[in-house]
Amino acid sequence: MKLATYDAGQGARIAIVKDDGLIDIGRAVPEAPATMIGLIAAWDHLAPALKRAAAEAKADHRIADVRLLPPVPRPGKIMAIGLNYADHIAESGQKTPEHQLWFSKMPSSANGARDPIQIPAATNFVDYEAELVAIIGKGGRNIAKDGAAAAIFGYCCGNDVTARDWQWRTPQWVLGKSFDTHAPMGPWIVTADEVGDPHALGIRCLVNGETRQNSNTGHLVFNVFDQVAHLSLAMTLEPGDAIFTGTPGGVGMAMKPAAPLKAGDVVRVEIDKLGAIEARMVAAP
Amino acid sequence: MKLATYDAGQGARIAIVKDDGLIDIGRAVPEAPATMIGLIAAWDHLAPALKRAAAEAKADHRIADVRLLPPVPRPGKIMAIGLNYADHIAESGQKTPEHQLWFSKMPSSANGARDPIQIPAATNFVDYEAELVAIIGKGGRNIAKDGAAAAIFGYCCGNDVTARDWQWRTPQWVLGKSFDTHAPMGPWIVTADEVGDPHALGIRCLVNGETRQNSNTGHLVFNVFDQVAHLSLAMTLEPGDAIFTGTPGGVGMAMKPAAPLKAGDVVRVEIDKLGAIEARMVAAP
Repeated sequence: MKLATYDAGQGARIAIVKDDGLIDIGRAVPEAPATMIGLIAAWDHLAPALKRAAAEAKADHRIADVRLLPPVPRPGKIMAIGLNYADHIAESGQKTPEHQLWFSKMPSSANGARDPIQIPAATNFVDYEAELVAIIGKGGRNIAKDGAAAAIFGYCCGNDVTARDWQWRTPQWVLGKSFDTHAPMGPWIVTADEVGDPHALGIRCLVNGETRQNSNTGHLVFNVFDQVAHLSLAMTLEPGDAIFTGTPGGVGMAMKPAAPLKAGDVVRVEIDKLGAIEARMVAAP
Repeated sequence: MKLATYDAGQGARIAIVKDDGLIDIGRAVPEAPATMIGLIAAWDHLAPALKRAAAEAKADHRIADVRLLPPVPRPGKIMAIGLNYADHIAESGQKTPEHQLWFSKMPSSANGARDPIQIPAATNFVDYEAELVAIIGKGGRNIAKDGAAAAIFGYCCGNDVTARDWQWRTPQWVLGKSFDTHAPMGPWIVTADEVGDPHALGIRCLVNGETRQNSNTGHLVFNVFDQVAHLSLAMTLEPGDAIFTGTPGGVGMAMKPAAPLKAGDVVRVEIDKLGAIEARMVAAP
């Protein structure tokens, strides 16, 4: 199933994606919670009613007519792994990390699939990073690797937008990773059963139609299940938490000459089975 | 005014602290929101009614009889600055950072003032860091230094509990800073007007009654207003966001020999005008 959060002028609502339309869940399954995190937490007992609605209900909106919000508009946490594809490690001039290298993006940086991405005056180098994003379902603590798949609700496209000058100004990356609008996610969550193997998905980033990143999640150094197991040694993973799983080679910082995103550029991230997110870059104060 | 979030067996509720008692806000000011973040966001028009209640209402509970939750049980974000007192920089063998050095603690690590702090099997060195915590009020983006005071709602005590082995295992600190229960805050928020100058507060950490840290917030390298202004260049600060403002010298890692916290230890953080938080360390799976 594909699940979106959208705004058709009445605030955030959740929906089932069907072809080019949205079935509003509040209308079709009135007993369902009103938010994506609520829906994920109640999934086990709601899934039959949602599957019925997906099969039988008519769409309430055309996707083209609404604003797509981040599927989880405000995740409890956004964790992101660095240096996790060999070609990106090489272009960054780094060595393959012995241990998983985690940083975070602030939940306030979440951005909808088609919403503009800001280039604030405070930074001189905004860059893209196409990433597979895992959305936590049951979650938990001390999750074994072979139990990690069951802890994940689904997947979506993500862009780990980065202010490079801020990333490198101090040894800690979080500020450069957490500018407002710099965590676009979407266009919706595809549930894990419909994705199948998350380590066999083509992943691409295009800037103004030019392919900049083109890889496959099969090349992850630490795979998604390793990541979930490792994170859960430290922290309880909770419904709706978002895990950015790493970016392949081809970022603008590594181009010759280095190529920051400019106002007016259109950045598209697409992943097999998950669809695409596409945004225009805009200057911001 | 002093504002707490507590649980007397009926879930999280918010209260005004009066002497050794709590005035339940849901009872005394029924029009107020039910959560601390809601209260902070609605502060301007609710303050008169709350001041009336603080002056006139009787306490509903004795503080000693309830569980104190983190004043903001689940902040939207927890940002924390590193290497921000000269003596802690020296004991860490570091140089004074040219730029503010920010990391984050995951909101899932928030912990009540008197709740146990976990020592999980996955770490061999849990340490304390006493810190003044600023709670954002109005917040905003691109806040000027001279407008930062108006963006802050109040202050509380914090303990930036750290799993040192996880902090140093990779160049990014977030995992070592984000174990469950490792962000104790409280005992309540003291509003900024009642604190006055936040840069003139004695701050201490005691382990089993022995003073380990003993400093004053006047010794901050980057002061609280610098911090708020700088963060807001990157991200919108929102009501209830928590800012850990740095720890003075005296952490367990720097003792000779290094002294990790052990199960059974009692760790107390106290700050002038803000009260104290005190927790027992417990082993966890």
